[in-house]
Amino acid sequence: MSQPVLAALVIIGDEILSGRTQDSNLAYLAKWLNEIGIQLGEVRVVPDVTADIVAAVNALRARFDYVFTTGGIGPTHDDITAESVAAAFGLPVIKHPEAYARLLAHYGAEKFTEARQRMTRVPEGATLIDNPVSIAPGFQIGNVFVMAGVPMIMQAMLEGIRPRLKGGHKVISRAVTIFTAESALAEPLSRIQDAHPAVSIGSYPFFSNTGGGAQIVARGPDLAQIEAVIAALKSYCEGQGLRFEEVAA
Amino acid sequence: MSQPVLAALVIIGDEILSGRTQDSNLAYLAKWLNEIGIQLGEVRVVPDVTADIVAAVNALRARFDYVFTTGGIGPTHDDITAESVAAAFGLPVIKHPEAYARLLAHYGAEKFTEARQRMTRVPEGATLIDNPVSIAPGFQIGNVFVMAGVPMIMQAMLEGIRPRLKGGHKVISRAVTIFTAESALAEPLSRIQDAHPAVSIGSYPFFSNTGGGAQIVARGPDLAQIEAVIAALKSYCEGQGLRFEEVAA
Repeated sequence: MSQPVLAALVIIGDEILSGRTQDSNLAYLAKWLNEIGIQLGEVRVVPDVTADIVAAVNALRARFDYVFTTGGIGPTHDDITAESVAAAFGLPVIKHPEAYARLLAHYGAEKFTEARQRMTRVPEGATLIDNPVSIAPGFQIGNVFVMAGVPMIMQAMLEGIRPRLKGGHKVISRAVTIFTAESALAEPLSRIQDAHPAVSIGSYPFFSNTGGGAQIVARGPDLAQIEAVIAALKSYCEGQGLRFEEVAA
Repeated sequence: MSQPVLAALVIIGDEILSGRTQDSNLAYLAKWLNEIGIQLGEVRVVPDVTADIVAAVNALRARFDYVFTTGGIGPTHDDITAESVAAAFGLPVIKHPEAYARLLAHYGAEKFTEARQRMTRVPEGATLIDNPVSIAPGFQIGNVFVMAGVPMIMQAMLEGIRPRLKGGHKVISRAVTIFTAESALAEPLSRIQDAHPAVSIGSYPFFSNTGGGAQIVARGPDLAQIEAVIAALKSYCEGQGLRFEEVAA
């Protein structure tokens, strides 16, 4: 079996850390990456502070195959991602000629203000990431992909970089809901986990006024082994008379 | 003005990293903490892997006043937070006598299985965090607060630890929506930011088929200065004939 291909995400933005904005890029990126055989291994949310962005990017780009960032690439004073990623790589910031040409065509010479020209800044040597929504591009430098924070734009940017990403195996998952206390399932789950080491079994309890239960998720690269885990769970539940439901994938 | 009191959050769980579960604890915790004068300064999402939990906890507890963790304190084989936090502190894991007594009373001797006893494990010297929802407690060791991942339980646990947290100033925020391209606002925003250094001004663009705009958020400890920023924005918009709306807090 091939080695897993792992990515990290750096979410840049005071608005996420303050709780004002609910992030939705993490879950979207995680699922999108898994479709091409890449798994998210760590996420950091950092404020609009250069030192914090530099520290996160440098820690993660050394450990992961790919690093994605979201946020902070607009035209305003609080958009400091380009300078911060350049600093992380020890590179100067340049105005990218192709980004400049695209934005000049978009705004026209008269309205292509200094503030708008900020959106052409990239670390020297970076390649652009297309933005079909609002033109201002993201960029790639080394294994770091710098994208917008606006979900619609981030999602469009991902489609553009798909050919640059080399995936490994996809992680398949199946889930079931078992309607009994999670603690009653701990022993059989542990036994089934030990018997299927290539499958990762997660257990997530839920509580309701009708009694609650646990959602059991089996994940791994091999569908047959995952199905064996689900079958073992089903067999256990039938033996114990426990209500059991498969969950839509 | 007092120093800010800063906290970090470690979200532990493969189900968040896979995109299967959408985290909601970050935003809740951020707002809850701010009410008592504590701001969230960094968040990390890590998988159910001991080394990753240890690394995150140790990096953050040295840098922040408080560290909160969510997830991984249940009875099943994938619940490894107690051992991992103990390892981060170099402490042995014990069965906490009070946690043991509570769960024994809850389940009764016959049903208090070895798996359920896993929920009494804490690093030696830890103090409990009450769980009024499902009994099994969280714990505090040093400046690290270990809580459940189920939002309803995490929220209940927070109420219990409120007296242990010493806050500083609260960050107040006001927001306005301006209906013009964010890039047209960059220059005045930069000017207003420079004139009000004690306020942090963030700009978050949005796009819609009726034209889009930007939400401008002014944050800081001093309401008068924040209101001065909002007034300056309003004055600019009136001068330019731009549509301007205050956003509910």
